[in-house]
Amino acid sequence: MIRIFVTGGTFDKEYNELTGTLFFKDTHLPEMLRLGRSRVEVSVRTLMMVDSLDMTDADRGLIVEECRKATEAQIVITHGTDTMVETARALAAALPPASGKTLVLTGAMVPYAFGSSDGLFNLGSALSFVQTLPPGVYLAMNGRCFTWDKVRKNRETGVFEAI
Amino acid sequence: MIRIFVTGGTFDKEYNELTGTLFFKDTHLPEMLRLGRSRVEVSVRTLMMVDSLDMTDADRGLIVEECRKATEAQIVITHGTDTMVETARALAAALPPASGKTLVLTGAMVPYAFGSSDGLFNLGSALSFVQTLPPGVYLAMNGRCFTWDKVRKNRETGVFEAI
Amino acid sequence: MIRIFVTGGTFDKEYNELTGTLFFKDTHLPEMLRLGRSRVEVSVRTLMMVDSLDMTDADRGLIVEECRKATEAQIVITHGTDTMVETARALAAALPPASGKTLVLTGAMVPYAFGSSDGLFNLGSALSFVQTLPPGVYLAMNGRCFTWDKVRKNRETGVFEAI
Amino acid sequence: MIRIFVTGGTFDKEYNELTGTLFFKDTHLPEMLRLGRSRVEVSVRTLMMVDSLDMTDADRGLIVEECRKATEAQIVITHGTDTMVETARALAAALPPASGKTLVLTGAMVPYAFGSSDGLFNLGSALSFVQTLPPGVYLAMNGRCFTWDKVRKNRETGVFEAI
Repeated sequence: MIRIFVTGGTFDKEYNELTGTLFFKDTHLPEMLRLGRSRVEVSVRTLMMVDSLDMTDADRGLIVEECRKATEAQIVITHGTDTMVETARALAAALPPASGKTLVLTGAMVPYAFGSSDGLFNLGSALSFVQTLPPGVYLAMNGRCFTWDKVRKNRETGVFEAI
Repeated sequence: MIRIFVTGGTFDKEYNELTGTLFFKDTHLPEMLRLGRSRVEVSVRTLMMVDSLDMTDADRGLIVEECRKATEAQIVITHGTDTMVETARALAAALPPASGKTLVLTGAMVPYAFGSSDGLFNLGSALSFVQTLPPGVYLAMNGRCFTWDKVRKNRETGVFEAI
Repeated sequence: MIRIFVTGGTFDKEYNELTGTLFFKDTHLPEMLRLGRSRVEVSVRTLMMVDSLDMTDADRGLIVEECRKATEAQIVITHGTDTMVETARALAAALPPASGKTLVLTGAMVPYAFGSSDGLFNLGSALSFVQTLPPGVYLAMNGRCFTWDKVRKNRETGVFEAI
Repeated sequence: MIRIFVTGGTFDKEYNELTGTLFFKDTHLPEMLRLGRSRVEVSVRTLMMVDSLDMTDADRGLIVEECRKATEAQIVITHGTDTMVETARALAAALPPASGKTLVLTGAMVPYAFGSSDGLFNLGSALSFVQTLPPGVYLAMNGRCFTWDKVRKNRETGVFEAI
C-alpha cells in the first residue's frame, strides 16, 4: 500500500471561467490514477490545497507530521514545484532513512486540467520510484529522481537539475 | 543514457479518418517525452510498427538482437500488450541478469493519440523502473512492475496481474 | 426549441480497450453541448447507434418518420458521413420545404472521444445553420452548408464538396 | 471569402509554465480551423492580442477601421467576452446594415489551449451565422446569436443572455 498526500501545486490548479484566473478546487489525483489504469494499492489524502509559494512553516509541519504518523512505508507527495525542495528538506530532517520510509515528492509544470500536462507522466514516475528506492527523501521530476539535498529547480528553464 | 526501442502496439495507433480504422504511422514517443518534460537522456529507435498479435518469431528475434547489441545498460521497449509477456520471455532467455542489462517492456491500453490514454503514465513509470531495478527483464503496466515470469495479461479486464 | 436526433456515426464511436476495436456505447451529444456551454434549447433523442455504412432502408424510414412526427421546426441529425447524403435525399423526398421544417445533418471525421475531433466544431456549426436557414434539408460539414442535392462526400479527401 | 480578425481574449490565452500565469502568444485560430476540418475560405489577421478588459478606445477604433476597410462582406471577430458587447456597439455605430457587412463577434469562456474549451464550438457557430445572417452586427456565444443591442453578458453565470 502506497500513501499519497496531496498538497496542491500546479498539479491541481483549475481555470475559473468567470474570473479568468487559476484556483484550486478538488484534487485530480483519483481521475489521474483512473486514466493511468493504475492498479497500485494507494490511499489518497488531501492535506491542503495551496500554491507552494504560499506554503507556511505550519503547513510544512503538518506534512511532516502526517508522513511521520503514516503507517505506510512508501509515500508520494504531490506538491507545487517552487518550494518542493524546501519541503523535502523539512521531511529529511524529521524522517531519516532509519525511519524506514521512502518519500517521493512530485508535481507538474502545467495543470493537469489543461490537457497538455506533464502531471500524468510525473505521477507514473513517482509511483514507480517510491516502490523501488531505499528509504530516504526524493524528488521525482522530468523522469528523473534526485535525493533531496542534490537538486534545485532552475527557475529560468523550469527544469529540476542536480547540484 | 537509456535506450528506447519502439515496436508499435496500441501506444502508437492512430485513427485513419478516411477509412475509419486504426493504423500505424510514426511513433508518438518523442512527443510524449516532450509533453512529460522528460530530461532523461534517451536514444529512441523504431524497430517495427506492428500490432503485437501480428508479431512474428522473426520480429522477436530482431528485438532480442537489438537489445543484445545495444551498448546501454537500461532499455525500455514499447510493445503491444497482447504478446508482451511472450517477447519478455524471449528477452529473458537471451539476456539473463548476468548480461548486466535492465529491460523494461511497457505499452498502453488506449492509443496515445486518443486523448485519454494511459500511455504517458506508463512511459513515466517504465522510465523510472528501468533506472532503479537490478538487471533482468520486467513488465511495467498499471503503475506496477513484474518480473517477466511472474505476470500475465488478464484478457477479461485488460489488467496485468501477478501469477 | 431544436430537436436533435442521434443516429451514431463516427461522432459517437469509442475505443474498446479490451479488443482494440471501435464500437458504439452512448452518445456524447450531451457532453459536447456542455463543453460548448450551449444554451440553445434542445431536446436530444437517440434513434439508433450505427455506422452509416450499415444503415438500412428501414433505419432511414425510421429517421424520416421521426422527423415528420417531431413538433419542432428545427431539427439537427448526427449521422455517419459515408451515407449522409443518402439519408438527406430520403428526408428531402418526405419533408419538402412546404413542411416548414429546417433539417440539418452533421457528423464528424474523427470520433469525439479521440480528443482531436472536428465534432464540436461541426455541432456548433449545425446548431447555428438550423436556426437561420429557411425550411429544407441541408448538410453542415467543414464549416460549410450544402443543400441536400448539391453535395457529395469526396472519399479520397474526406471533404464534403459542392456538385 | 470570410475575413477573421483576431483581437485576443480568453480564446487565445496560454499557460506560462515558468510563472504560472496566463499570457498571450500567437493565435490558435489556424490550428482550430484545421482541427475543425474547416473548408470555408477565410483570411485570418491578428489585429491585437489583448484581454478585452484592457481594450482601449484606440483599440476599438482600430477594429472598426479594419472592418470598414475590409473588402469581405462577412467578418468574424474573436474577442474577449467581458467587453464584447461594447466593441459590438462601436461596430454597429460605424457599420450600419446599409454597409452590406455581416459582422459576428465570438469568444470563449475557457482558453482553447486548456483542452476543454468552448472555443471550437463557438468558432463553428460564428462561421455559420456569418454566412447566413443579413448585414448587421451580432454576437455568437453559447450556440446562440444575438444582435448587438439585444444582449448582455451575465457575469454571475458567464452566459450571454437576451435583454
